[in-house]
Amino acid sequence: MPDSFKILHSSKDGPYRTGILNLFHGQVKTPCFMPVGTLATVKAVSPDELKEAGVGFILSNAYHLYLRPGHELIRDLGGLHSFMNWDRPILTDSGGFQVYSLASMRKITEDGVVFQSHLDGSYHKFTPEKVIAIQEALGSDVMMCLDWCTGYPVERQEVEKAVEITTLWAKRSIEARERRELRLFGIIQGGMHKDLRRRSANELLCLDFDGYAIGGLSVGESQDIMLEMIEEVVPIVPRSYPLYLMGVGTPEDIVEAVHRGVDMFDCVLPTRNARNGMAFTRFGNLNIKNAAFERDSSPLDPECSCYTCSRFSRAYLRHLYKSRELLVYRLLTIHNIFYYMELMNSIRQSIEKDTFMDFKKRFYEQRANKK
Amino acid sequence: MPDSFKILHSSKDGPYRTGILNLFHGQVKTPCFMPVGTLATVKAVSPDELKEAGVGFILSNAYHLYLRPGHELIRDLGGLHSFMNWDRPILTDSGGFQVYSLASMRKITEDGVVFQSHLDGSYHKFTPEKVIAIQEALGSDVMMCLDWCTGYPVERQEVEKAVEITTLWAKRSIEARERRELRLFGIIQGGMHKDLRRRSANELLCLDFDGYAIGGLSVGESQDIMLEMIEEVVPIVPRSYPLYLMGVGTPEDIVEAVHRGVDMFDCVLPTRNARNGMAFTRFGNLNIKNAAFERDSSPLDPECSCYTCSRFSRAYLRHLYKSRELLVYRLLTIHNIFYYMELMNSIRQSIEKDTFMDFKKRFYEQRANKK
Ligand SMILES: [Zn+2]
Ligand SMILES: [Zn+2]
Repeated sequence: MPDSFKILHSSKDGPYRTGILNLFHGQVKTPCFMPVGTLATVKAVSPDELKEAGVGFILSNAYHLYLRPGHELIRDLGGLHSFMNWDRPILTDSGGFQVYSLASMRKITEDGVVFQSHLDGSYHKFTPEKVIAIQEALGSDVMMCLDWCTGYPVERQEVEKAVEITTLWAKRSIEARERRELRLFGIIQGGMHKDLRRRSANELLCLDFDGYAIGGLSVGESQDIMLEMIEEVVPIVPRSYPLYLMGVGTPEDIVEAVHRGVDMFDCVLPTRNARNGMAFTRFGNLNIKNAAFERDSSPLDPECSCYTCSRFSRAYLRHLYKSRELLVYRLLTIHNIFYYMELMNSIRQSIEKDTFMDFKKRFYEQRANKK
Repeated sequence: MPDSFKILHSSKDGPYRTGILNLFHGQVKTPCFMPVGTLATVKAVSPDELKEAGVGFILSNAYHLYLRPGHELIRDLGGLHSFMNWDRPILTDSGGFQVYSLASMRKITEDGVVFQSHLDGSYHKFTPEKVIAIQEALGSDVMMCLDWCTGYPVERQEVEKAVEITTLWAKRSIEARERRELRLFGIIQGGMHKDLRRRSANELLCLDFDGYAIGGLSVGESQDIMLEMIEEVVPIVPRSYPLYLMGVGTPEDIVEAVHRGVDMFDCVLPTRNARNGMAFTRFGNLNIKNAAFERDSSPLDPECSCYTCSRFSRAYLRHLYKSRELLVYRLLTIHNIFYYMELMNSIRQSIEKDTFMDFKKRFYEQRANKK
């Protein structure tokens, strides 16, 4: 039952809304974005800095933490929250996507998936039960079912098999679950096939999940195709459930997906791009390596009030980046996360005020108008 | 005239004392330690974190900042303090040591030194006047004269020449100086030759410096030899001048040098060793990579109240280090800098209370007693 989610304000003009997730470590307003903390750390920033940037919910990863340092070690040290000194909600991905994208070998059977670690080539087996046990050991506020994530392009036959297995594993996940205080989400697969997306959604909706995710998108397809898949799923999932679009995306992706009814997002873009010298701003993206910033005494974004923009100039950040100084990865990451948090704030506020369409128009105008 | 330095408490048992440096950006209590911020950043930490760790004075580098981003760029952006968002005192090394240790070629004449950049092999010339101009452009609270730094071992003849040239350049540095609000220190050379150390000190003492540094130590010689050179210099320099031992050192080096009358220190050890996984503690040094810490829920040092030790376990730090997560370089750097600041605090307090010898005995006992 979706008692973990309360809708605050539904738009009259579409399926978009604001809401509140009630999770073991606290409440989260939706639509929300989770920065990615793969290895029990959001790369380059501290938990305090995440909070200062307005982050209330992060994503971590069962696959990665299982391989190192090991979920049992984390459990013995008091769980993931204690281990990484983060006392707000954490969602953990199940590992289905990582096994698909990272493992050097994977062999899927009805029972589970055998794979080789991307770290040392060692063999491991994930079953739906094992993945629930890992996430319960971590103490994730939201656990994700093990799924079979297909790529793009891919044979339809494989996607059909993936949908079938994903539903089978979803049932076993629910049965394996012991810690009821932790929420469990099912993952809708179906590749880029509308009928398979509908089938996957309908099958999972027969099961007792706290929320639903759309997986297997942002794997190389165009934004148009991604949005079509979202549009196929949204009308099927009862509006009382939170809907989570996994691994997405750019600010533009998020705005479009919210418009179509998505409540939750995660993506490595703000953190990974920061480490590559790219800053998101309201006025478009900028690359700090650009020679134009050599003597630029203004902050990354003159209208941004983040830690970085309050203290440091583009010229200084460029100097640090050119010198490969560690501080710069942090400063750009803080700014990008703050940008994403502000974006979600603006989205929520505009929905509350029934001005989302105005917001969206201004958002695109500003993003196209580089300063 | 040394009006930039006021002695607070002199020991009756030796040349050690506490004092206050009055600098353009504020006061600093001595004996003091300056973390190294070579490229306008103390590697891996923010200015706020330095302040929280108790840092009141940092060192930066004329050679490095001249090469990138360029001292004129920094001047045009408001000076080094503004550029890096640090409003407390900064001392800049002149580049003599960097030309000696980093440049791929150097050719010294009476006029100055021609060298090739370690970055791109480009040719540059430093004269005493140029190096003062660079440091005045940066706005360093304490500028250092260009010196000729000799290595170890080295021919006596070269050291004699280096002392002669260093004195000549010191005179020209004083004449070149324009910004009187910035302090200027002379650098005593003389290698590992007692008579040449005395000669260098006596020659520089005829000039009007605000303080004196002992350079050319910690270049490969034993601690015994280093301490002998300090013992040779201290009785010559009037006690009204602050005395700065450049590039030193371990906690043990600092305690011994303070005992012999040194007031100021800088060293890359706390920051560089942190990035190599090494933590300084009262109870000896520890390497976070050590397998013994895999499940260790205690902080780096159970008696340390730094940001890192207040929040994170050895097990978590080890996990981050093994995973090469950027956060760990910061967390270990914060701890090590805090350790050095606490060490200097303890030294100053014990001198004030006339219990330095007790402090020193306990310091060695604890450092030998690994926990
Ligand atoms: Zn910003
Ligand atoms: Zn500590």
